[in-house]
Amino acid sequence: MSEELNDRKNGFLELVKRIRYHNDAIAVLHWDLGTGAPRKGVPQRAEVIGMLSAEAFKLSTSDEMGNYLSYFNEPDNSSRLDPIMKAAVRECRKEYDKYKKIPEEMYKGYVILTSEAESVWEDAKKNNDFELFKPYLEKIVEYNLQFIELWGYKENKYNTLLDLYEPGMTVEKLDAIFTELRSRIVPLAAKIKEAAYQPEDQFLKQYFDRLKQEEFNLYILGRMGYDFDAGRLDESEHPFTTGINPGDVRITTHYYPNNFISSVMSSLHEGGHALYEQNICADLNGTLLCEGASMGLHESQSRFWENIIGRSRSFWQKYYSELQKVFPEQLKDVSQDDFYKAINKVKPSLIRIEADEVTYNLHIMIRYEIEKALINGEIKVADLPEAWKEKMKEYLGIVPPDDSKGVLQDVHWAGGSFGYFPSYTLGNIYSAQLYNTARKEIKDFDSLVLNGELFKIKEWLAEKIHKHGKLLKPSEILMQVTGEEINPEYMIDYLENKYKEIYKL
Amino acid sequence: MSEELNDRKNGFLELVKRIRYHNDAIAVLHWDLGTGAPRKGVPQRAEVIGMLSAEAFKLSTSDEMGNYLSYFNEPDNSSRLDPIMKAAVRECRKEYDKYKKIPEEMYKGYVILTSEAESVWEDAKKNNDFELFKPYLEKIVEYNLQFIELWGYKENKYNTLLDLYEPGMTVEKLDAIFTELRSRIVPLAAKIKEAAYQPEDQFLKQYFDRLKQEEFNLYILGRMGYDFDAGRLDESEHPFTTGINPGDVRITTHYYPNNFISSVMSSLHEGGHALYEQNICADLNGTLLCEGASMGLHESQSRFWENIIGRSRSFWQKYYSELQKVFPEQLKDVSQDDFYKAINKVKPSLIRIEADEVTYNLHIMIRYEIEKALINGEIKVADLPEAWKEKMKEYLGIVPPDDSKGVLQDVHWAGGSFGYFPSYTLGNIYSAQLYNTARKEIKDFDSLVLNGELFKIKEWLAEKIHKHGKLLKPSEILMQVTGEEINPEYMIDYLENKYKEIYKL
Repeated sequence: MSEELNDRKNGFLELVKRIRYHNDAIAVLHWDLGTGAPRKGVPQRAEVIGMLSAEAFKLSTSDEMGNYLSYFNEPDNSSRLDPIMKAAVRECRKEYDKYKKIPEEMYKGYVILTSEAESVWEDAKKNNDFELFKPYLEKIVEYNLQFIELWGYKENKYNTLLDLYEPGMTVEKLDAIFTELRSRIVPLAAKIKEAAYQPEDQFLKQYFDRLKQEEFNLYILGRMGYDFDAGRLDESEHPFTTGINPGDVRITTHYYPNNFISSVMSSLHEGGHALYEQNICADLNGTLLCEGASMGLHESQSRFWENIIGRSRSFWQKYYSELQKVFPEQLKDVSQDDFYKAINKVKPSLIRIEADEVTYNLHIMIRYEIEKALINGEIKVADLPEAWKEKMKEYLGIVPPDDSKGVLQDVHWAGGSFGYFPSYTLGNIYSAQLYNTARKEIKDFDSLVLNGELFKIKEWLAEKIHKHGKLLKPSEILMQVTGEEINPEYMIDYLENKYKEIYKL
Repeated sequence: MSEELNDRKNGFLELVKRIRYHNDAIAVLHWDLGTGAPRKGVPQRAEVIGMLSAEAFKLSTSDEMGNYLSYFNEPDNSSRLDPIMKAAVRECRKEYDKYKKIPEEMYKGYVILTSEAESVWEDAKKNNDFELFKPYLEKIVEYNLQFIELWGYKENKYNTLLDLYEPGMTVEKLDAIFTELRSRIVPLAAKIKEAAYQPEDQFLKQYFDRLKQEEFNLYILGRMGYDFDAGRLDESEHPFTTGINPGDVRITTHYYPNNFISSVMSSLHEGGHALYEQNICADLNGTLLCEGASMGLHESQSRFWENIIGRSRSFWQKYYSELQKVFPEQLKDVSQDDFYKAINKVKPSLIRIEADEVTYNLHIMIRYEIEKALINGEIKVADLPEAWKEKMKEYLGIVPPDDSKGVLQDVHWAGGSFGYFPSYTLGNIYSAQLYNTARKEIKDFDSLVLNGELFKIKEWLAEKIHKHGKLLKPSEILMQVTGEEINPEYMIDYLENKYKEIYKL
């Protein structure tokens, strides 16, 4: 390698590391806000985060960065880069192009708008007042349409937004996927609703001591291979994962005294996210490749642990007796079979984040269809409350009594995250597709779960998915691991088989 | 005010805010390291802190800062600044001059050296190996001597170091103070040692539940006016206070299951530091004036709450019954009087941080004399272990069996903090001097403490001391509040009166 190339490479990596380190600090500041930062310090904290974000933005779009990218773009230089450097440059170019195309003033205006909109949304949701939120949402949509013009798009405007979260995903592909889902999941949900047998889950609503919930969660996280020397479990209003660096990936849960299963499931969920970040190859640390390949693939890891493992009969074959030891009073009259069925109860509900495995994807479908129509000018912001109600009736057979439990329930749009929602269903689909491969490749998969030996499963996921970080595209990883493109059949089959058995259909 | 002056003022304040905000973020990152950051994330965290510190350093010594300082230095401009702006400029000039005089490479070398030295010191202390630490300490002293040459000094080289922590303090003043202390405290300690009556404190070493210790500490902190909406209490290896901004001042304690009084006293101590930072006037926020006037004055606040209030008979008149409610088993046979005497037991000991009120200042005197001699070339680093033992024998009548319990016990020198130790005794002296004034100015001071109404005392301290932040020099504040310069008589009288009564001398 020529001396110049080497110098440029080192200079580039130094610059990228500075960007990452700003994001490291920001991640800690956010985590701290979510886990107990004193109320009176919050306004100044927001300003500190704003300053550090602006500095990272400046570095990402600096002339220095531009020069490196031009240099590495020359075929002579590009051809001499190793795969990691190539991908590291690719990701920086993506950021650079994305932000350079937006005038600085416009970007600033958008950042201020979305930050205001999030607190207006909170009020609007609390007071069931869509009109309050409407003007903000209209401006946010307007900004996004302008961004799409500046960034350009292929075939469908919405593709540009999808690509932000799931590189390579398109409306064409998603339409096919959701059509398939609709044709089989809507009828499945309907049959379940009408089934004669319905699981009893009242016993889940007893009082469960917070410290004992924590004790069990720590135990399960340890069993699944979450590394407590590289993470910690705290409590927050809503559960989340913060990946600061691979040596510091923190998760939170929320303890409800009358619903312990919520904290167990969210610990498994966030634990799945955290395993991804803890096991990214050390060679990628300090670059923009040191994160998940896409939101969908990230979500596949959390869903894999929460649903495919954590809501399986075989998982509780091993751990239900442990759970009974922690809560002997509450669970003494509950059989393992009753417990399994209770935590898999399907019931059409108004709120996405409380939905079961079967109806969850219908909630996502509604959001996908609304976003797609909105971005393509087929409906207006003012139409959203009605559109929401119609879709709910169509897919879930229930209609929210007000907008707080309808169109105002999610924070995503207030933050400008259009195109994000499909990641959740993609995560479900990926998780079932990976599960199918894992059962073939991992010797005695079923008896490992039956015996609670989750560690080997974690190792497989780390080797096949986690270690690559963002080096490969999600579709490349999926192809490499499962031998095929995204295929929703695995998830639908999984759901049909599982729930036909539970509901005796 | 002219438009130019106004523009410059705003520009200057913006720049200073950026420096402060970097320090805000660094403070959170440090707090996080001390309260449970995962082990594997620590190396990268150190790098992130290093990067942010370097950025703050760059801003503090930037040409932009230099230009503002020159501009505000012109008499025409300077005369039109309000007192806060004047002081804000003064503090920035101090930093600017301090760092500009040191060549950048030299400063970097020193930062790396002290950071290495701290981990070498840890090993040296653990293995009782002064020789391991010696070469590092020699280099650190050498650097400090070079800094003194670059910064300049008056009368005594050590004055330059003292001034870093206690602006205006000199060897001349300190020598007089310590001579006075020595002449009265060494005999007092000797008499106590020989006294026929010695308090019994074995009952303090029973088992005390950690959660119950915490409960009592939270209660006491609330009573003294610590604002939990602007702070929080956590656990760490060694107790500390982190002032992020006046709306976010956090404290930590350490829980020993067999010594609950340690966590109570450290909560009062750190609570005292925290009250200072929580009550700095909001007008000073975002400038370098938003901190304590000096280390000594800061320490006076912690000592006031820990010792003068927290180890007083009248404080426990109110709170001992509350404490007995928390630990009924352990304290059922212990009278309030026995308890008061136990927590005030005086015993010459080897370790500074475990010392009682009487002997504590002797520990500081030893360090002061050694530092002064070292910086003035009267002794060498190689002589320190012996010098330490001699002084211990002279002042405390005991000799450490090894260097771990002697010269290697404190981290300060490894971090290059020469000139810091006197702050602790200055804090004690200030606290007694302030106490004397407080008792005159606050109506019914004694009965307020007797009734546990600590809030009015906090209000007085906030009004007299805290709100000024770093606007005034410590000597100005002391003069303004007590009407005289630093006067060690108050502390010595306080100690003599208190301990003659306890020890029946």
